[in-house]
Amino acid sequence: MFDFTIIAKNNRARIGIFTTPHGTLQTPVFAPVGTQAAVKALTPVQVAELGASLVLSNTYHLYLRPGDDLVAELGGLHRFMRWPRPILTDSGGFQVFSLAQTRVVDEDGVTFKSHIDGSTHRFTPERSIRIQENLGADIIMAFDECADPNDHEYIKLAMERTHRWAERSLKAKRRADQALFGIVQGGIDPDLRAVSAEFIASLDTPGIAIGGLSVGETKDEMHAMLDVVTPLLPEDKPRYLMGVGTPEDIINGIARGIDIFDCVLPTRLARHHSAFSPEGRLNMMNAGFARDERRIDESCDCYTCKTFTRAYIRHLIVAKELLAGTLLSIHNLRALIRLVEDIRGYIADGTFEEQRPILLERWENNAKRKVNG
Amino acid sequence: MFDFTIIAKNNRARIGIFTTPHGTLQTPVFAPVGTQAAVKALTPVQVAELGASLVLSNTYHLYLRPGDDLVAELGGLHRFMRWPRPILTDSGGFQVFSLAQTRVVDEDGVTFKSHIDGSTHRFTPERSIRIQENLGADIIMAFDECADPNDHEYIKLAMERTHRWAERSLKAKRRADQALFGIVQGGIDPDLRAVSAEFIASLDTPGIAIGGLSVGETKDEMHAMLDVVTPLLPEDKPRYLMGVGTPEDIINGIARGIDIFDCVLPTRLARHHSAFSPEGRLNMMNAGFARDERRIDESCDCYTCKTFTRAYIRHLIVAKELLAGTLLSIHNLRALIRLVEDIRGYIADGTFEEQRPILLERWENNAKRKVNG
Repeated sequence: MFDFTIIAKNNRARIGIFTTPHGTLQTPVFAPVGTQAAVKALTPVQVAELGASLVLSNTYHLYLRPGDDLVAELGGLHRFMRWPRPILTDSGGFQVFSLAQTRVVDEDGVTFKSHIDGSTHRFTPERSIRIQENLGADIIMAFDECADPNDHEYIKLAMERTHRWAERSLKAKRRADQALFGIVQGGIDPDLRAVSAEFIASLDTPGIAIGGLSVGETKDEMHAMLDVVTPLLPEDKPRYLMGVGTPEDIINGIARGIDIFDCVLPTRLARHHSAFSPEGRLNMMNAGFARDERRIDESCDCYTCKTFTRAYIRHLIVAKELLAGTLLSIHNLRALIRLVEDIRGYIADGTFEEQRPILLERWENNAKRKVNG
Repeated sequence: MFDFTIIAKNNRARIGIFTTPHGTLQTPVFAPVGTQAAVKALTPVQVAELGASLVLSNTYHLYLRPGDDLVAELGGLHRFMRWPRPILTDSGGFQVFSLAQTRVVDEDGVTFKSHIDGSTHRFTPERSIRIQENLGADIIMAFDECADPNDHEYIKLAMERTHRWAERSLKAKRRADQALFGIVQGGIDPDLRAVSAEFIASLDTPGIAIGGLSVGETKDEMHAMLDVVTPLLPEDKPRYLMGVGTPEDIINGIARGIDIFDCVLPTRLARHHSAFSPEGRLNMMNAGFARDERRIDESCDCYTCKTFTRAYIRHLIVAKELLAGTLLSIHNLRALIRLVEDIRGYIADGTFEEQRPILLERWENNAKRKVNG
């Protein structure tokens, strides 16, 4: 059911096909985030038109609202949100651990308070898997502990617990139509990362996730961890770098053998009136765009760029029209999906190593190049 | 350029074709409102998919933001908002008069304060026409004074001024590719309405608008005014009932010879989580819909009803997902556009008089039939 076939490689970068019950994923793939069973401000038709093949949804949020039992009763997440293609759910681990003030971790699981109403809840590996089985995503995650990478003592304990929880997650899993990925942890310690990579690889899951990155470490630290981890993972399984997805992170991740990415950045930037462009990040609210007849990115093929001027989008933002968020989400998501499509093409042609510095020059420090019109 | 051909009549109800520079309108027609050059929460593609042929935009709002000069510089409203089909702009009269606290009317025009920043502005008939020429809609309105229908003394003065302003609007008009409609006023006084209908009809504009209704009077009063006005208007010109558009108002308006409607109700209801349905108005936030697998309206052919359950839409509302507003706007707008399409079919078949009581039974007092799931 969950075959992964590598089609071509350029050094550590690879393109492949991952088969799921809801269709195949061409990897590398960037997954838009639909936290609450909806990619923010977009219909499923609009998401599909972006070329998206995989959508991520969050177990913690759906467990709280509308409830995984309700989603199961209504036929599972694909049917509930009308997304017919593959879905990935996280385990709730990261979300719960970001509730730093209210969570209590013990060997068995985590007790935490809802961000919605303060009510008390408990996740264990078994509970997380049961919730993810109710949701019914194609790719599900082992329950893990994502700890502060700067607390070296604790990160080792958390990693070891994550390994025990990965075994319990695997044991709890019942559905054959879901691929459970173990999660490599270990903070920014190369030795711990190596131990974790080897342990998670030994579990023989259909894919492997790398967690605990993009949580405050430097880019160099992230790259160093990937340089330790991916060489220790089996070639024939897809690797998912959780929650990572600036343009430069995607380029650098693929170069280090990553196959799956997800990130809230494109839709979050959209809500903050910011647009990806090779020039830099466009602050679309700025008065400098008021009479700008150009597209956000003249080279982009998204609906927004094929249709609207910067001037119109700037007007929508100033006038507080919701359409602004929709149009910017379309563009920002398409920018990352197109980047990944381009890279797939380069890997197929064997030109990724040549193209990589060109792509990096275009996208590196994109966040620091503010364009105000 | 602005031919109006009547295709069929059932008593006073008629179907026709109105030709504009951006295509023909099949009348009766319901126009979604895009106040600020955008139908709230919808892309132009989504608006077109609803079967919308005409969109209304507001002169007052666009004059203030982004400015009619900017819209003109960027090629006019059709190009600015990427709506290739006909557009209608109002004159700003109604909006200005709803700023009751800050406006001062004199014979020449109105001075008012912006609702955005409190700055002082002035509209005259000539200024309103110049702004509407900058915007470039296919159908534009004479500048009028919409007064409190219960102030009988004043309503006569306002009507007479509206007539003088209609003449000045006509004289100010320069573009041949815009149809200027005069506006019938006169409050809820049948004698004044008759005077106004005859005067406006005498101006020989390509169409005639009826203003000052749906501003607090009863349904019976509205019908009485239409019964006075439409028989006095020329048969061969389209009649636009400004700002009116509940389902029952549309049915009753068409029966009294109205051809064009617009109303913010469908999109406003959507933002308040309310959906049109023949059962009544569905309060989609209600917990009763949490596990309801039915569509909002099982008979509706819109994207929302073809795709999503009430349970999912209720979840989106509770989770504060913007997609809820988009999906409800699609449904509510399609409900009215489909009602008008159905009525066009009945008039073509000669069955409107038979169908009218059935339609009224379905839609009358729809607002009072609250459905909580």
